[in-house]
Amino acid sequence: MIVAMRKDATPEHIRRVVEKIRQAGLSPVEMPGGERTAIGVASAIPADLRGPLTDQLQALEGVASVTQVSRAFKLASREFHPADTVIALGEVRIGGPQVVVMAGPCAVESREQMHQAAAAVKEAGGLILRGGAYKPRTSPYAFQGLESEGLRLLQEAGRKFGLLTVTEVMDPHDVGLVAEHVDILQIGARNMQNYPLLVAAGKSGRPVLLKRGMSASLDEWLLAAEYVLSAGESRVILCERGVHPLDRTYTRNTLDLSCIPVLKELTHLPVVVDPSHATGNARLVPAMCRAAVAAGADGLLIEAHPEPARALCDGQQSVGTRTLGSLVAELRQVARAVGRTL
Amino acid sequence: MIVAMRKDATPEHIRRVVEKIRQAGLSPVEMPGGERTAIGVASAIPADLRGPLTDQLQALEGVASVTQVSRAFKLASREFHPADTVIALGEVRIGGPQVVVMAGPCAVESREQMHQAAAAVKEAGGLILRGGAYKPRTSPYAFQGLESEGLRLLQEAGRKFGLLTVTEVMDPHDVGLVAEHVDILQIGARNMQNYPLLVAAGKSGRPVLLKRGMSASLDEWLLAAEYVLSAGESRVILCERGVHPLDRTYTRNTLDLSCIPVLKELTHLPVVVDPSHATGNARLVPAMCRAAVAAGADGLLIEAHPEPARALCDGQQSVGTRTLGSLVAELRQVARAVGRTL
Amino acid sequence: MIVAMRKDATPEHIRRVVEKIRQAGLSPVEMPGGERTAIGVASAIPADLRGPLTDQLQALEGVASVTQVSRAFKLASREFHPADTVIALGEVRIGGPQVVVMAGPCAVESREQMHQAAAAVKEAGGLILRGGAYKPRTSPYAFQGLESEGLRLLQEAGRKFGLLTVTEVMDPHDVGLVAEHVDILQIGARNMQNYPLLVAAGKSGRPVLLKRGMSASLDEWLLAAEYVLSAGESRVILCERGVHPLDRTYTRNTLDLSCIPVLKELTHLPVVVDPSHATGNARLVPAMCRAAVAAGADGLLIEAHPEPARALCDGQQSVGTRTLGSLVAELRQVARAVGRTL
Amino acid sequence: MIVAMRKDATPEHIRRVVEKIRQAGLSPVEMPGGERTAIGVASAIPADLRGPLTDQLQALEGVASVTQVSRAFKLASREFHPADTVIALGEVRIGGPQVVVMAGPCAVESREQMHQAAAAVKEAGGLILRGGAYKPRTSPYAFQGLESEGLRLLQEAGRKFGLLTVTEVMDPHDVGLVAEHVDILQIGARNMQNYPLLVAAGKSGRPVLLKRGMSASLDEWLLAAEYVLSAGESRVILCERGVHPLDRTYTRNTLDLSCIPVLKELTHLPVVVDPSHATGNARLVPAMCRAAVAAGADGLLIEAHPEPARALCDGQQSVGTRTLGSLVAELRQVARAVGRTL
Repeated sequence: MIVAMRKDATPEHIRRVVEKIRQAGLSPVEMPGGERTAIGVASAIPADLRGPLTDQLQALEGVASVTQVSRAFKLASREFHPADTVIALGEVRIGGPQVVVMAGPCAVESREQMHQAAAAVKEAGGLILRGGAYKPRTSPYAFQGLESEGLRLLQEAGRKFGLLTVTEVMDPHDVGLVAEHVDILQIGARNMQNYPLLVAAGKSGRPVLLKRGMSASLDEWLLAAEYVLSAGESRVILCERGVHPLDRTYTRNTLDLSCIPVLKELTHLPVVVDPSHATGNARLVPAMCRAAVAAGADGLLIEAHPEPARALCDGQQSVGTRTLGSLVAELRQVARAVGRTL
Repeated sequence: MIVAMRKDATPEHIRRVVEKIRQAGLSPVEMPGGERTAIGVASAIPADLRGPLTDQLQALEGVASVTQVSRAFKLASREFHPADTVIALGEVRIGGPQVVVMAGPCAVESREQMHQAAAAVKEAGGLILRGGAYKPRTSPYAFQGLESEGLRLLQEAGRKFGLLTVTEVMDPHDVGLVAEHVDILQIGARNMQNYPLLVAAGKSGRPVLLKRGMSASLDEWLLAAEYVLSAGESRVILCERGVHPLDRTYTRNTLDLSCIPVLKELTHLPVVVDPSHATGNARLVPAMCRAAVAAGADGLLIEAHPEPARALCDGQQSVGTRTLGSLVAELRQVARAVGRTL
Repeated sequence: MIVAMRKDATPEHIRRVVEKIRQAGLSPVEMPGGERTAIGVASAIPADLRGPLTDQLQALEGVASVTQVSRAFKLASREFHPADTVIALGEVRIGGPQVVVMAGPCAVESREQMHQAAAAVKEAGGLILRGGAYKPRTSPYAFQGLESEGLRLLQEAGRKFGLLTVTEVMDPHDVGLVAEHVDILQIGARNMQNYPLLVAAGKSGRPVLLKRGMSASLDEWLLAAEYVLSAGESRVILCERGVHPLDRTYTRNTLDLSCIPVLKELTHLPVVVDPSHATGNARLVPAMCRAAVAAGADGLLIEAHPEPARALCDGQQSVGTRTLGSLVAELRQVARAVGRTL
Repeated sequence: MIVAMRKDATPEHIRRVVEKIRQAGLSPVEMPGGERTAIGVASAIPADLRGPLTDQLQALEGVASVTQVSRAFKLASREFHPADTVIALGEVRIGGPQVVVMAGPCAVESREQMHQAAAAVKEAGGLILRGGAYKPRTSPYAFQGLESEGLRLLQEAGRKFGLLTVTEVMDPHDVGLVAEHVDILQIGARNMQNYPLLVAAGKSGRPVLLKRGMSASLDEWLLAAEYVLSAGESRVILCERGVHPLDRTYTRNTLDLSCIPVLKELTHLPVVVDPSHATGNARLVPAMCRAAVAAGADGLLIEAHPEPARALCDGQQSVGTRTLGSLVAELRQVARAVGRTL
């Protein structure tokens, strides 16, 4: 931690900073410069002390800025856990050499729709079936999902076609019910900093797929993962789904693929990409799937619907299940080109 | 609603759009242009039909874009409720001619701290005491609040000094307990689209102060308010607290004061401003308070702490309670200049 | 400057960083921590060395990050020039106790229009007449301005009504001609980092009003000012005109008023606000003018047109000249409330 | 064009909108709805009329919004020019089946450096040599380039090694000199809306590589291309280089690869990607190169330096020329996987 003093800071201001750091049990190092002084803290700062100490130092007179040098996340950090986390679910491995395709409709709508979707996902080579039972909709007047009935239909379709399942959970008190029905709990972008939900998911016994918030920095995202990890669940999958865009004329969000190589340095957790929410446009999904695999993604979460033009939500961003097969075949070529399977 | 067709759309593509609109019970109007055709929907579209119909039209071949003309929110809209909502709580009126000052520490830390803070808020002319019992912290290792004990200390300090109280609630299942102890429930920026929480707050019987999400558009924010309103609670206060910034070198967020006159056109709900979280820097708070009042804010939510340098959270953005009085006196001058009291 | 090493940095990596800093004539201070080492540079780094040294250090193996502690701008900095810069032009003072109103049409269109506008600006109490002769238009098919004829009409109207004049210049080779006709040269947002233009303007002998770029950080903006200052012109006026918005449904840009108190700490240069381009909507201009004055702006740049509905550009954001007078009267109240005149 | 009226618009307000559209020689269509009226303009609106008419309509009373349906750019549009533009320069084809690698140092520093760089680019399989002679630097104190001497060194190195050359031009009055020395003129991100420069480049007789502005929407970028095209030069290459990021902790900008498939729909112009400026970090460049090729980029612009740790600018984002060869070999695999050569 580095505390930079203002140019007009007095020796007394500097003294108080040094004292505050000492009181916290740390060792300050004064670095007088030509124009201003900085005070460094050489020793590692305990995680629970970083936030309050930073705030308190910034509130002192004469302080210009407080800069953190080491990262605030720990369990999520590759520094503390150098080997990749590989999540084993039945025969599926997430985070290993194989790129995992997860696909299915935005919302579970009916038994027939889920069976058609699951059949198509299976045939295309997908390993995990997605489908929303609880839908976080921007408008209270939009379709909100089939809820517990949706969970049952998703579970049934997954079992029938030999697919694992993933679905979103929005309320901490639904976590138990959802965890009984599906293999992976999804936390959506809107809930990335819903801390009671993160803690409940981290205690559910199921792996958690954690979507990036709409304007979350990578540090904020990894600290959200840290909530799940510190609640006891080590199997967290990070899912990039696009960040708030400059402009919504052509895409709903901006897919930030450069997060993949950055995250591969910072963390040991698997990283998957949702090109459907990122673009909001099914015509752009194939190119973004190819790019994600080439950038090093460990998996893809693709919205696919038997009949996009009749979907109750997100029809415009859903790939038709008939075209899913040819898309997966293309992706297999790209995976091979970068030394992976799919 | 306007559906713009692509230049290469065929008459068959156009026919299917027209038919889909008719099936929804609406009247399409074809508008052939020089280069491309647009199809308008003249009648009002029921709120529950807008989302799915838009999605389904966008998924049809030959469609370039679907543009909404009327707003998606209804109960929040000034078109449906032309008069300002004025929220009466005891003798306090939020949304009337008086600009209401809400102030207090980021977190409730102790009885002594809350009594000192409440005394200072009261003396400065504030009407509402704030203080966090449940703290949404980016890091799981940061201080998370005193929880139910914090609620009691806040309630006690409010009663002792004749102040109303406001505090944040994060879990839908804490809503009942929080509503028993405080006068106004706060939904934080991270939870603006936590729909189970919005619905629970809307059924609590308490007014709701709804902070804007970090990258929420005004439509998304008003639709979040619509969740509370449609759950039954008509007393919603909108709170601008800064949006995701270009750059964090000098401020934590970018305070978007132009939302005030825009919201005054779009909605009848009161609008207040939190300059403390918006700037993240106590030295900037006075200027932003003055600007907010001049722009037409109905209230201010100011972090104030008896000893900012010892605060357990947000010390650097907290105004000292000693300076709160002089700040309020300045604001009174600005309020008068724009025809308000404070 | 602080160089943070990666956790896996070797002693050899650290040695090379220390050596590179020594080669630059500076004194490195090693700060070994629990998990990683940081290397501080205590002495002030010459301005021309900062960029290359930072780049070179970041390119070394084992380096995690390089953080600057002191500012990159110098002539613009209040640390080197503590007193406010007050620009005197005739009897007008920009940056002093009086808030200066600059107003006029987006584009110079005709002699009649300019005389009507100038008369209205004068009557309302404005001191400076604005009007575009060279128009930076997003589309090549939009009206591009009357060019040199526009300069003459602006000059004539200014002289006739006793107003100073300001106009935008876009090409470094037009600077001489523009400087002959007007009192203040404006550099537009699109050209904030057009370095040949900044240098040419800095040598013109005229004060320069420098608009903030659409996504410029304050440091980038002050470094653009530094180009003008280092070319020899000390009279630079900073003009906030809104930054790239989250969403364009209701405003063209997001007016960042918190930049005013931040800039007042960082720099001695006057700061004015353009609420017309910031909002893109004349109905929002009065509230944003009031807020800017309350936040401490030294002036306002307001688009005003005799007949907004007939304007050749930016009609929707232009205040009618008839209403300009009542707006200025309101602003005078706000200025008085914050201890200024107008 | 669709003009949506406010709910409280009177019949007289509507009449004036209809009349204003008729006066412009266009045919208004009234669309009365349940709550409000919209007025459509069915015929194509001439390009030079769009801007002023939109502005004038928005300034009329009772108007809520004016929405464009067709695009503002024309020469850049695929609707008007369905076939891909393929730019032929000697034996190189930009925009055809081969993905073109352009590489070289940020700045031309010396003859030796350029010869080393050119040899490495040639050997790696690159076709075009980049190198900056005029450098747009954020700080006036940073190295500004060797200028005309740099042009000569770049030209010499290109000729010696059989490479085409590309370099940035910043001043309209340098365009002639630069065009004499290099094969492709580059317009940088900071100058994307420097209209005199765009027009001068469009008249130079050289193809133009136009970088996207830091916060430019795709429409703004294509309108900038339209300036070059309408000045007479049909050979424009669009270069994505990252947009303003949410956060600069790990990357300088956010690479927006989804712009590639969107641009492939909107325009016939080739699209290349600069992963070096997008990420600002050489370690991230390989993954982003692979992703760009997979997403459909027609070329890559890669910063490569013989000794990154000694570079006078952008050392931290430059790939070492020794590793360029292995990177290009990897990219060739990805190109093949998506049906391209490289």
